[in-house]
Amino acid sequence: MDIATLRAQHPDHWNKACAIRTLTLDAVAAANSGHSGMPMGMADVATVLFENHLKFDPLAPKWPDRDRFILSAGHGSMLLYSLLHLTGYADMTLEQIKNFRQWGAITAGHPEYGHATGIETTTGPLGQGISNAVGFAMAEENLRARWGAKIIDHFTYVIAGDGCLMEGVSQEAIGLAGKHELSRLIVMWDNNGITIDGKVSLSDITDQKARFAASGWDVFECDGHDPVDIDRAITAAKKSPRPAMISCKTHIALGSSAQDTSKGHGALTSPELIAETRKVYGWPHGPFDIPADIKQAWEAIGARGLDTRKAWEGRFETLSDTRKAEFTRIFKGEAPAKLAAIVRALKKQAVETMPKLATRAASEKALEVINPVMKETMGGSADLTGSNNTKTGDLGMFSPENRAGRYVYYGIREHGMAAAMNGMALHGGVRPYSGTFMCFTDYARPAMRLSALMGVPVVYVMTHDSIGLGEDGPTHQPVEHLAISRATPNTLVLRPADQVETAEAWEVALSQTKTPSVMALSRQGLPAVRSKHVNQNLVAKGAYVLQEAEAKRQVILIATGSEVEIAVKARALLEAEGIGARVVSMPCMELFAEQDDAYRRKILPPGPVRVAIEAGVRTGWDKWLLGQGGREQKAAFVGMDSFGASAPADRLYEEFGITAENAAAQAKSLLGL
Amino acid sequence: MDIATLRAQHPDHWNKACAIRTLTLDAVAAANSGHSGMPMGMADVATVLFENHLKFDPLAPKWPDRDRFILSAGHGSMLLYSLLHLTGYADMTLEQIKNFRQWGAITAGHPEYGHATGIETTTGPLGQGISNAVGFAMAEENLRARWGAKIIDHFTYVIAGDGCLMEGVSQEAIGLAGKHELSRLIVMWDNNGITIDGKVSLSDITDQKARFAASGWDVFECDGHDPVDIDRAITAAKKSPRPAMISCKTHIALGSSAQDTSKGHGALTSPELIAETRKVYGWPHGPFDIPADIKQAWEAIGARGLDTRKAWEGRFETLSDTRKAEFTRIFKGEAPAKLAAIVRALKKQAVETMPKLATRAASEKALEVINPVMKETMGGSADLTGSNNTKTGDLGMFSPENRAGRYVYYGIREHGMAAAMNGMALHGGVRPYSGTFMCFTDYARPAMRLSALMGVPVVYVMTHDSIGLGEDGPTHQPVEHLAISRATPNTLVLRPADQVETAEAWEVALSQTKTPSVMALSRQGLPAVRSKHVNQNLVAKGAYVLQEAEAKRQVILIATGSEVEIAVKARALLEAEGIGARVVSMPCMELFAEQDDAYRRKILPPGPVRVAIEAGVRTGWDKWLLGQGGREQKAAFVGMDSFGASAPADRLYEEFGITAENAAAQAKSLLGL
Repeated sequence: MDIATLRAQHPDHWNKACAIRTLTLDAVAAANSGHSGMPMGMADVATVLFENHLKFDPLAPKWPDRDRFILSAGHGSMLLYSLLHLTGYADMTLEQIKNFRQWGAITAGHPEYGHATGIETTTGPLGQGISNAVGFAMAEENLRARWGAKIIDHFTYVIAGDGCLMEGVSQEAIGLAGKHELSRLIVMWDNNGITIDGKVSLSDITDQKARFAASGWDVFECDGHDPVDIDRAITAAKKSPRPAMISCKTHIALGSSAQDTSKGHGALTSPELIAETRKVYGWPHGPFDIPADIKQAWEAIGARGLDTRKAWEGRFETLSDTRKAEFTRIFKGEAPAKLAAIVRALKKQAVETMPKLATRAASEKALEVINPVMKETMGGSADLTGSNNTKTGDLGMFSPENRAGRYVYYGIREHGMAAAMNGMALHGGVRPYSGTFMCFTDYARPAMRLSALMGVPVVYVMTHDSIGLGEDGPTHQPVEHLAISRATPNTLVLRPADQVETAEAWEVALSQTKTPSVMALSRQGLPAVRSKHVNQNLVAKGAYVLQEAEAKRQVILIATGSEVEIAVKARALLEAEGIGARVVSMPCMELFAEQDDAYRRKILPPGPVRVAIEAGVRTGWDKWLLGQGGREQKAAFVGMDSFGASAPADRLYEEFGITAENAAAQAKSLLGL
Repeated sequence: MDIATLRAQHPDHWNKACAIRTLTLDAVAAANSGHSGMPMGMADVATVLFENHLKFDPLAPKWPDRDRFILSAGHGSMLLYSLLHLTGYADMTLEQIKNFRQWGAITAGHPEYGHATGIETTTGPLGQGISNAVGFAMAEENLRARWGAKIIDHFTYVIAGDGCLMEGVSQEAIGLAGKHELSRLIVMWDNNGITIDGKVSLSDITDQKARFAASGWDVFECDGHDPVDIDRAITAAKKSPRPAMISCKTHIALGSSAQDTSKGHGALTSPELIAETRKVYGWPHGPFDIPADIKQAWEAIGARGLDTRKAWEGRFETLSDTRKAEFTRIFKGEAPAKLAAIVRALKKQAVETMPKLATRAASEKALEVINPVMKETMGGSADLTGSNNTKTGDLGMFSPENRAGRYVYYGIREHGMAAAMNGMALHGGVRPYSGTFMCFTDYARPAMRLSALMGVPVVYVMTHDSIGLGEDGPTHQPVEHLAISRATPNTLVLRPADQVETAEAWEVALSQTKTPSVMALSRQGLPAVRSKHVNQNLVAKGAYVLQEAEAKRQVILIATGSEVEIAVKARALLEAEGIGARVVSMPCMELFAEQDDAYRRKILPPGPVRVAIEAGVRTGWDKWLLGQGGREQKAAFVGMDSFGASAPADRLYEEFGITAENAAAQAKSLLGL
């Protein structure tokens, strides 16, 4: 539908959509950066969605049963900010719009979760939003099954562009959604045929409708500028028993001289172009000037959901106090009070039996007692269930036939899994954890970074965390991956050494509300190193003295996870020669760094030579080896400085010199012995 | 086709395929680990491919015009090892097969490039092989256009499993291949319906044939155990004018009690199962025992390509000596001799004009002079051509209409791009480089790791390498990414400070034959810091003294890339107060680490306080700040310890304290001033 027809036939709609378009033009011009074309192209679709379909209430942006609206094409952030401002979200003032992309504003270049209410997830890295949305929709299905449709019953809408659909992660998301028949998921594809480099056809000829249909989606299309046609398509999509994709044929940068060009993708800042476009729009108003009647029309849309929300609150009030408290707790992402006691009991039991156990198996044992008391957990694995030990007896399989199931077979989709977990956690009410081999952290990286950036407390269960994986060889052996996750801000890397530490690590991970955790777990069996029960969670301190020197302390051996066993053996070798050696277990560098200076100096006093043992690269270790040391602090690292190899694990440890003998020899060498 | 029929109707074929199956069973049993089911399932397809179609010569495994065979489902490595052994690759002895997955053997758990001849690429991380294959096929098209079909004219065959097809990167590869009508690419999908966790339908209902067709592929199918039907499908696929996918319906772990189950995916080691399976196969021979007639039949297949290869050599000999030398050079991956002179000339020119230039723009200037003398380069970008500055005037666009074009519009597919680059480089004759924003290194990580593991000298042009990216905000601002690439073994991270260093960095990157490079380049303009021309490539030393202290040297300021400017200003501030400060530019930590101890101590002598400045996390810096220092070496780091934010770049540097003033203040504080 061309602009003239649109204006003539749907003047009210046109004005509302035009408010989005001109706010976008004005904000981008003021910032002298940003992306004008997408909001200008999708304003009609968004207007119809908000006016006729989206269940939301700007007065209660966190209302648990709202529909979720996810702008996967996050560069079009001004579309979202305009909608939030126009419909009356209190924090999205005109001042914020005017400060688009400026320091301290909630209107960042791309929508940042936590900056403004109404931003459901951080988007910008393409493909993430649509993949988060699958997690949102899975959470909705699960919670609806468990809490009833009176409490949870809503849609997840996504706007995605060609960029989102070209990123591989979108295929993982599409496959997952298709399999699970997520009928409450509706993706509106901004089908404008343009990317930054030019026409989409420069790089892709994919028939997107056929592609979605191939994975079990229902597919619709509409003229993305015709409000009637848009409404028809959304209405039909909502009725579909499968996830729905609507191909919205749009013109990027509609009405400007950059329309339908890659130039239109970016920042349109030329005053002439903007003035011309205003003329085409028939919009005589000045920059950031939204006439009162149009603003009121938008506010009426914003007020549409109030009654529905109040009715929901009424229904919520009919729940028992226990149920209400439980619902509130899980939506806050808080662990239940009894978690600590459960973990303590497990620790006691472990100390009594001191089993030799791979930490991945210890993790399963922890989950076996945790999952029954944290019914909000949803576990899963990227096709390595038996290896990651993520499935416990009580979970049940999440499927179209069993929406209450809490275990997800994600398939070979590490990236889609991580992004879905982010979505689940952001939806609220669900506490996701899932596993793969630690080496394949690589595949999930973009979503793991967003967990950290958004502060979403998901748990990545990364097993087979070193060359201890053995015969599968270097493609499957993480070497740099501990360093990678540790280098990422706001990420806890937990590498427990035995069953007790693993239980403590789970308590730490599940107690987070703003930080994701990476659990690094061994494939190989490990002896118990914690022989005395203490109530305190020692992992929570990050590092602690596991064994004190008997002879005069000349050496501190620092190790994590599977190498703590080696440190303990190295200590024995040294002590046998009269060289006193302390063993420090350091399951979490980030938590240790958070301790006060006095505690850190107590654990790592300056003076004794330091030998760190970890079957990974040295990167990140110098801080503990050389930092806060004494004069000419002497230190060595026993670990990897290359990729691994294919052989049985014991042989690899031997060949790469990650042995007690080598650690002891390094210590002696540092001591000049 | 069932086994009985197969044995009855095609006894010769059966015996050959059975040799693969039993070698697999025996090797996995001997290793007590590995994956039996896939080779047992795909033995028939592979036998037909090698017997009737694949152009290869075990006597000349590096023959440039051989067909490439890529086992994307790398866990089925015994399929490949069996084929190499049976057809007569000299290094793949029976002894190696017997040492499957053992230390020092060339028969690693997954096929490792460089271990055995005939392994075209390292596979195992799923989805990589099929994505490499797209690069192989692109290289073939490009080289055929430039060298003629008499020199380059071959197919790329891939065996991929459900795991490969579920990984998102496969979608990127499929899209790229479809767009480019890579008719020499043939993917044989091992359609066995089984993954590790169970049936594929647990996690996916995708109609793979429809999915491939949606991206412009021709699709075929066959009974993956019927040699006639397999041959028919491959023959048809070779004739297709588009990339072809053959759905090969197979039974995983054929003939064993684990057939068609997820148990069959893994290691079948039970002696009873193996004995039973041998019975079903009608294979009375002992472990690793291949009857002479069957081995001979296989060796005849191996000998099939000899004449073709000799004929090719004859044609190659008709080329001029210059062309022959050029062909040999580019297949060795060596830079031309004149590269050094070209770079020197550019450096001279740059020193004369000392332009203020973003290093991404400096990179374009370098490429403008390099590409004309290195016609084997193929550039590209993941839809950020104008931002990555990767396209130079002479390249031409690679497309179905222009196969000789050297610039690839990869679309929004960082991961597929990186994997395709690996494939191009592995094919030989092509030197790929391509760009994206450095933050999206994350998306490409799995393929970048494989570049390093395989020792493939591709160049990643990562622009917008810090918060200097500005308004796009934290989702687009790398913070931990320098640390991530530096933590990865066998990777050069080059972060040049100005045009001279950028030119030197390109020379370094293109001189590598076994190591990939990550070029970290600024979005923002940077002043020239190198004011005197020297012939020597200083970047190749990793770090060097850019400016010496004037007053007594009390401080060493160390910086990289865009922060060298800040170090230079900080030095001026300090010198103005009579505090002598040296500026060390450190464009490449890995190369600096390779210098001898004397050089390193010359650049970073113990004593003066050290302040490092880099707009990234501290991870990896302590080695240079605290290592090789003096007694109580004092050091500070000026950089990031959190994610970035959305604002103009200057404001961000200010707010995050990455300023000359702060660096100078830190130095003074360390000096107790």
